[in-house]
Amino acid sequence: MANLTFEKEITALVVIDPCNDFISQGGKVWDRLKGVAEANQCIPHMVQVLDTARRAGIRVFYALHRRYRAGDYETWKYVAPIQQAAWKRKTFEHGTWGGEIRPELQPGPGDVVVAEHWCSSGFANTDLDLQLKKHGIHKLIVTGLIAHTCVEATIRYAAELGYEVTMVKDATADYSDKEMYAAIDVNIPNYASAIVTADEIVAAISLLAGAKVGTQS
Amino acid sequence: MANLTFEKEITALVVIDPCNDFISQGGKVWDRLKGVAEANQCIPHMVQVLDTARRAGIRVFYALHRRYRAGDYETWKYVAPIQQAAWKRKTFEHGTWGGEIRPELQPGPGDVVVAEHWCSSGFANTDLDLQLKKHGIHKLIVTGLIAHTCVEATIRYAAELGYEVTMVKDATADYSDKEMYAAIDVNIPNYASAIVTADEIVAAISLLAGAKVGTQS
Amino acid sequence: MANLTFEKEITALVVIDPCNDFISQGGKVWDRLKGVAEANQCIPHMVQVLDTARRAGIRVFYALHRRYRAGDYETWKYVAPIQQAAWKRKTFEHGTWGGEIRPELQPGPGDVVVAEHWCSSGFANTDLDLQLKKHGIHKLIVTGLIAHTCVEATIRYAAELGYEVTMVKDATADYSDKEMYAAIDVNIPNYASAIVTADEIVAAISLLAGAKVGTQS
Amino acid sequence: MANLTFEKEITALVVIDPCNDFISQGGKVWDRLKGVAEANQCIPHMVQVLDTARRAGIRVFYALHRRYRAGDYETWKYVAPIQQAAWKRKTFEHGTWGGEIRPELQPGPGDVVVAEHWCSSGFANTDLDLQLKKHGIHKLIVTGLIAHTCVEATIRYAAELGYEVTMVKDATADYSDKEMYAAIDVNIPNYASAIVTADEIVAAISLLAGAKVGTQS
Repeated sequence: MANLTFEKEITALVVIDPCNDFISQGGKVWDRLKGVAEANQCIPHMVQVLDTARRAGIRVFYALHRRYRAGDYETWKYVAPIQQAAWKRKTFEHGTWGGEIRPELQPGPGDVVVAEHWCSSGFANTDLDLQLKKHGIHKLIVTGLIAHTCVEATIRYAAELGYEVTMVKDATADYSDKEMYAAIDVNIPNYASAIVTADEIVAAISLLAGAKVGTQS
Repeated sequence: MANLTFEKEITALVVIDPCNDFISQGGKVWDRLKGVAEANQCIPHMVQVLDTARRAGIRVFYALHRRYRAGDYETWKYVAPIQQAAWKRKTFEHGTWGGEIRPELQPGPGDVVVAEHWCSSGFANTDLDLQLKKHGIHKLIVTGLIAHTCVEATIRYAAELGYEVTMVKDATADYSDKEMYAAIDVNIPNYASAIVTADEIVAAISLLAGAKVGTQS
Repeated sequence: MANLTFEKEITALVVIDPCNDFISQGGKVWDRLKGVAEANQCIPHMVQVLDTARRAGIRVFYALHRRYRAGDYETWKYVAPIQQAAWKRKTFEHGTWGGEIRPELQPGPGDVVVAEHWCSSGFANTDLDLQLKKHGIHKLIVTGLIAHTCVEATIRYAAELGYEVTMVKDATADYSDKEMYAAIDVNIPNYASAIVTADEIVAAISLLAGAKVGTQS
Repeated sequence: MANLTFEKEITALVVIDPCNDFISQGGKVWDRLKGVAEANQCIPHMVQVLDTARRAGIRVFYALHRRYRAGDYETWKYVAPIQQAAWKRKTFEHGTWGGEIRPELQPGPGDVVVAEHWCSSGFANTDLDLQLKKHGIHKLIVTGLIAHTCVEATIRYAAELGYEVTMVKDATADYSDKEMYAAIDVNIPNYASAIVTADEIVAAISLLAGAKVGTQS
């Protein structure tokens, strides 16, 4: 296993798109994600990592997708397929429950919620890179959804921009094993320095600041 | 099949890492790529698309990986796994044959060779986006290597930055079918508006400016 | 005078920080700006250019500064002087009148309001570049505040990113003539292809789509 | 005076465009810069700061303008005025003495020379931000040319991207006092946390690593 030493001052947890449409019963995409998400306990693992990070004094950054609003895409001359899908489906519609963050994953005091992203990467066209720099961050621990789109995109960008990334492979989910495999086994190993389980990352960061090992909420 | 209408003034061909270390007999990575590359005729297809684009008046942009130089990585505090590999392997070593562009894919007059990229995306930390804008480009046709790393990364960035992308699926290659599948079938369909064969793109762009249909060189 | 030919499809009006704290009686910074703003009729010129652009079918983009929220800066390790000032002054405080756009400059249907910027450039850490590309824009007409900070910063970034810029010199303002001179006479001429009056730009863009010449509101 | 405490591990010296065309007798722009440059001892100060930084263990980054090559601009649809001037003048022509770095300011072992910039900012369309992050840098000390164009542009970008900047005001130069005033007195104070003399910065960084105070070479 890769070296899992983290220095609190330069490490952040990045939580990607933890919204109801993705990870709550009744969400627009949940039926497509629940098979993998329930099998790997994605949601309890996201909560476990989040809680442990906070106790360890690791700052938390939220990367959230654009909440759909009427008129978002009508005037665009060029719309990528994944944006076509978001447009048709009205995923994360502004002002609706689906676009809200799942309750036990809500941002807390001191967490940073960055500007919404329009495609998949939490970095592209947002202030995520700025906020990380303003807080002196160089190492990212990543959880969230969806593995082969927003998560992989954010990790790829992180590597391109110079960050060191640790991916928590059972704190994410996808439509099926083939997308999980493409993201976790084929692509992300090129860009993330470590790919670990929630238990492994919890053990590693609990050492910081004398924090106790987190237990699943 | 997707709409394959291209306007010459706003369309570019982007050729990614067409260097000897990747696609020439004796190159450092060729042995790992030749299985797929020979099966799908990657190199003749790259040549065919390049020649046809030039005849059609579509401008060509080269996105090239950093040519390895001693000292590139020694002082970095954070080195992504794919950069660790490039460092160890000295891929595209500066001043060597391996870092040179394969002869029949050489840049010609009017082609634009952008600054070298350090990771996988031709856009990250380079002037590719600038050069495309300076030439008024909005649509990209993409060929080159390697499918699941630099090609997918460049296509993902292109979509994030607002470009419309067409991927030529038999003018790329990879280590094995699993990486090709991850790139071409799982991920790129979210970001490229069309994924086509060399024959299809040649037919589409040959219509521009009365250019004749390209034949394989 | 520079060539003032604009093609509607690739031209946008960018309106920078037209908020009450800057340009309305009672705004936090108005007392420092009103001398120049009233002398050059900044506000009626901004309205005149906005109205004419809409009638001419030129799309409008709003670049707005971060609305101050408690906690914005407390955890930052590095805070630029201009951010220190915004923090101390709580300029554009979220939820207050000062952070709202002046009524006659409000966004209308089809206008694009991009993500808030944290320093001076409307491009940095926002989706302005993306939105411009998605709409096929290459030429920018710029109005707004403050000349030597956000306006100059946005124009410098625009030039760096490949856009062609026309600055409307009497649809901006500043603390005094020395800042106006630094921005309009010393610096911006290097980055904007034309620096014109509101009357000149109104005459130029009124030609598009048979729009009538705008009159001051 | 601002706090001038620097931690070696997170501080860098950025040297902008120290090429013969700007700062050597016979260079294409020297005649326009020499009045200010000789009055404030720009060149000995640049050497003094560079030598001291190296002795103090502060890493040095070079931000260099595009060396002019035939064909650079002919196909661009949009060319900013400062690029028009570089094109006409063939400043820093590739392969000529004018494009070379002045001898006593040459990069040494461990220095990082980033990709050439096309307009004014050393960050735009280059790997400067990446290289700084890969080396863990957050604070920049800036010297070089020309104050109101490349230096101011690089400092503005640095602030936008989250870096803390110290400007060395007598290790830069400009065409005349009016451009110096616009850059040093009007604009840069908004973005640089400190604006100091070469003697002040040398005193501050000499404290690092027991380095002796640098003397002018």
